[in-house]
Amino acid sequence: MAERQAHIGVTGLAVMGRNLARNLARRGHTVAVHNRTSARTRELVSRFGDEGDFVACTSPRELVEALQRPRRLVVMVKAGAATDAVLEEFAPLLEPGDVVMDGGNAHFEDTRRREAALRERGLHFAGCGISGGEEGALHGPSIMPGGSAESYRALGPLLESIAASVDGEPCCAHLGPDGAGHFVKMVHNGIEYSDMQLIAESCDLLRRVAGYEPARIAEVFREWNAGRLDSYLIEITAEVLAHPDAATGRPFVDVVADAAEQKGTGRWTVQTALDLGVPVPGIGEAVFARSLSGHGRLRAAARGLPGPARPVLHPDDAARFAGNVESALYASKIVAYAQGWQLLAAGSAAFGWDLDLGKVAAIWRDGCIIRARFLDDIRAAYQDAAQAPVTLLADPTFAEALHAAQNPWRHVVAQATELGVPAPGFSSALSYYDALRAERLPAALVQGLRDYFGAHTYERVDRKGTFHTRWGGDRGEEPA
Amino acid sequence: MAERQAHIGVTGLAVMGRNLARNLARRGHTVAVHNRTSARTRELVSRFGDEGDFVACTSPRELVEALQRPRRLVVMVKAGAATDAVLEEFAPLLEPGDVVMDGGNAHFEDTRRREAALRERGLHFAGCGISGGEEGALHGPSIMPGGSAESYRALGPLLESIAASVDGEPCCAHLGPDGAGHFVKMVHNGIEYSDMQLIAESCDLLRRVAGYEPARIAEVFREWNAGRLDSYLIEITAEVLAHPDAATGRPFVDVVADAAEQKGTGRWTVQTALDLGVPVPGIGEAVFARSLSGHGRLRAAARGLPGPARPVLHPDDAARFAGNVESALYASKIVAYAQGWQLLAAGSAAFGWDLDLGKVAAIWRDGCIIRARFLDDIRAAYQDAAQAPVTLLADPTFAEALHAAQNPWRHVVAQATELGVPAPGFSSALSYYDALRAERLPAALVQGLRDYFGAHTYERVDRKGTFHTRWGGDRGEEPA
Repeated sequence: MAERQAHIGVTGLAVMGRNLARNLARRGHTVAVHNRTSARTRELVSRFGDEGDFVACTSPRELVEALQRPRRLVVMVKAGAATDAVLEEFAPLLEPGDVVMDGGNAHFEDTRRREAALRERGLHFAGCGISGGEEGALHGPSIMPGGSAESYRALGPLLESIAASVDGEPCCAHLGPDGAGHFVKMVHNGIEYSDMQLIAESCDLLRRVAGYEPARIAEVFREWNAGRLDSYLIEITAEVLAHPDAATGRPFVDVVADAAEQKGTGRWTVQTALDLGVPVPGIGEAVFARSLSGHGRLRAAARGLPGPARPVLHPDDAARFAGNVESALYASKIVAYAQGWQLLAAGSAAFGWDLDLGKVAAIWRDGCIIRARFLDDIRAAYQDAAQAPVTLLADPTFAEALHAAQNPWRHVVAQATELGVPAPGFSSALSYYDALRAERLPAALVQGLRDYFGAHTYERVDRKGTFHTRWGGDRGEEPA
Repeated sequence: MAERQAHIGVTGLAVMGRNLARNLARRGHTVAVHNRTSARTRELVSRFGDEGDFVACTSPRELVEALQRPRRLVVMVKAGAATDAVLEEFAPLLEPGDVVMDGGNAHFEDTRRREAALRERGLHFAGCGISGGEEGALHGPSIMPGGSAESYRALGPLLESIAASVDGEPCCAHLGPDGAGHFVKMVHNGIEYSDMQLIAESCDLLRRVAGYEPARIAEVFREWNAGRLDSYLIEITAEVLAHPDAATGRPFVDVVADAAEQKGTGRWTVQTALDLGVPVPGIGEAVFARSLSGHGRLRAAARGLPGPARPVLHPDDAARFAGNVESALYASKIVAYAQGWQLLAAGSAAFGWDLDLGKVAAIWRDGCIIRARFLDDIRAAYQDAAQAPVTLLADPTFAEALHAAQNPWRHVVAQATELGVPAPGFSSALSYYDALRAERLPAALVQGLRDYFGAHTYERVDRKGTFHTRWGGDRGEEPA
């Protein structure tokens, strides 16, 4: 065994860890690999050993001793208690200045806690979001590293070498200290929930209103993918829709149980947005839509409830409707990303990360699940931090697109509403748009009611201060 | 000072604690009162001493010594650290068997933690939701006590004597152990958020679509309050809408800043629902609508975004539209309560509370903010636990109402959509209704996509098991 020769170590060799290790080795780095059960380590080296330079290690100590200094150790285990256990095991073996990277799907608050704890022991801890699934990990993911600038000096060049890239620019950049990387990854996933929900609603509408079969909808998505919606999710939607089930010959999407699952990052996104006071209703609807789909007993009980008669459109109208759905999808997608970016900005302000909002768009352009042409426009919107829009909706490029899309968008939501096809993502996005641009909101009444029943006070539009009306008495007003 | 004579003690004499103490004294109970700063204690006794039998105490020890055994001590301080501090101060002075009630707005998880900690010390801790604001506390609130059965034997008679009542039945009942009371109060507030948002949207639509002025809308609400919508919130909405601002002569709701505030229980409701996997999108939209209204800078940036031309309806059409809004409000309200009850059921199952879902409706019929005739129907739906509906929507009474309401409901949402008036509460409620009754949801596509990019697997409709398609390979299917 070559002592102190490996450039980087990976512990945790389930599929994500294994593929990341292979990616590193293929790029010419010497990778020390370790897994709690050594069989996985042996399997990796025996199956993929010819892809690059691996150093198989059978214990944490052996792994640590195999690494050049400062050591770079990548932890790829299940988020939660397993991560804490591994850190507890390795930390005593490491030396000040060593860098530990967590590439799992950790909650950013856990990452903040771990970073602080390891910093006290002189170690750098880099919580690092990785998106792209198994294939991405192997061929080039989008990488979102947080942690100290020093940790990025040690890790950055290796991570950039294995990340996806666009025009030679790697989809990997140092985002900010402590939890910044995992926070950004969380928001990525929140947006992904929204994006997928909007795509799912589009398919549902094309099917139930336009009367298109899945194969036909796949064609529509292929066309869309040649335009402004060009993205990985649109591309694979066409693939999934076009896929026939081998066993039955039926469309694949018709034999799959319609109960969507989730792993927690969508939920975290909404919970965090609530804590930070950022409205992300579209992401909320998407998370709840998944949750609702899995409530079989509830759905069975409600299935008999009445809906409207639902005529399928005439083919000529169907084509126009499909065009409107494209507009609705594009406009709603802008809203989804606007909500996500709002949350990024709020997180950055709350935790002092100084996030570069354009850079986030840049590193999501390839490698990750929501990769899309669209992200180039978001990057452009945030190119100049001093001129950054308060909301993406107000960026001239997107405002113009919304202007053009708003009428068809309204028609689609109104039609879905009248025909009884649920489109919570589309309608929530449109409500957000209409609420944000409203001159006045009925929130004034809400404040009046709160003052009435709870003396919660209110502000006035015409002078400063906080006021209370003596509702139970003479109804005079007093400063509060 | 009369040692060991007081029936109950209250510490924390801000307006809620003071009014609760006065309510107890007025009902013939001897109440020992204490506040960290004694001025408040003296003020209570000097101003309201003739209302009943108070024992003014200047220290925790004096308060504890003034109480009959087992002692009944009501803590009415700010939720959070202040509650922990007060418990830490009093616990060593109490004896096994004594009962401490927390009447603040605590998070139910904090209540669970505190109950467990005090139980170890032999004390009963009763986390107790109280709704009705200051006036309710004084004249008869809705009281939602959690805690041990023994704690309720000690406290129940006193609490029932000061609670609101309906036909002689007190709006107070033992709900279940540890956090049950505060959980139920949290859900009450979540529903309240939804209810108020729906009312606010109704007003906004009557104003911006039907062209009614606030005074006219107040009349509409008075009419509605004579029908099935009969409730405290509808009643006070009419009061607030009809109120002219003294300083300007303008409608009060037009001089109030349209930025709604919140205290946290709405947020907790949504966060808890996400943890428990219960879809409450309507409550989510309501919480986010408040949050959005307060984002002044964001709204200013988006105010110029284009909307549709918005013609005000002809008076004949306006009257019909107002009728439709009533239907939309009633139907959406059923959905709001259905989501709340779903969460109650899930909390009960998750924490082993064995909540009586009919009893919750019964004790909300008066005293609390969402008190309404409507709750009698909910109580009836859950009267027989064995026959309880899986969802309120499927209860015959409500299903019939939804059947009659669904067309006008759809028209209102479609019209709001086309005219650019945000109605996130109405449209989210309708989406929930349509999603629950859908034969198939596009969640199947979501599962297909998740399997495509992340090998997350899926289930099939035609056989048991979990499957994966080799999307990157021969696209064959394999058991997962």
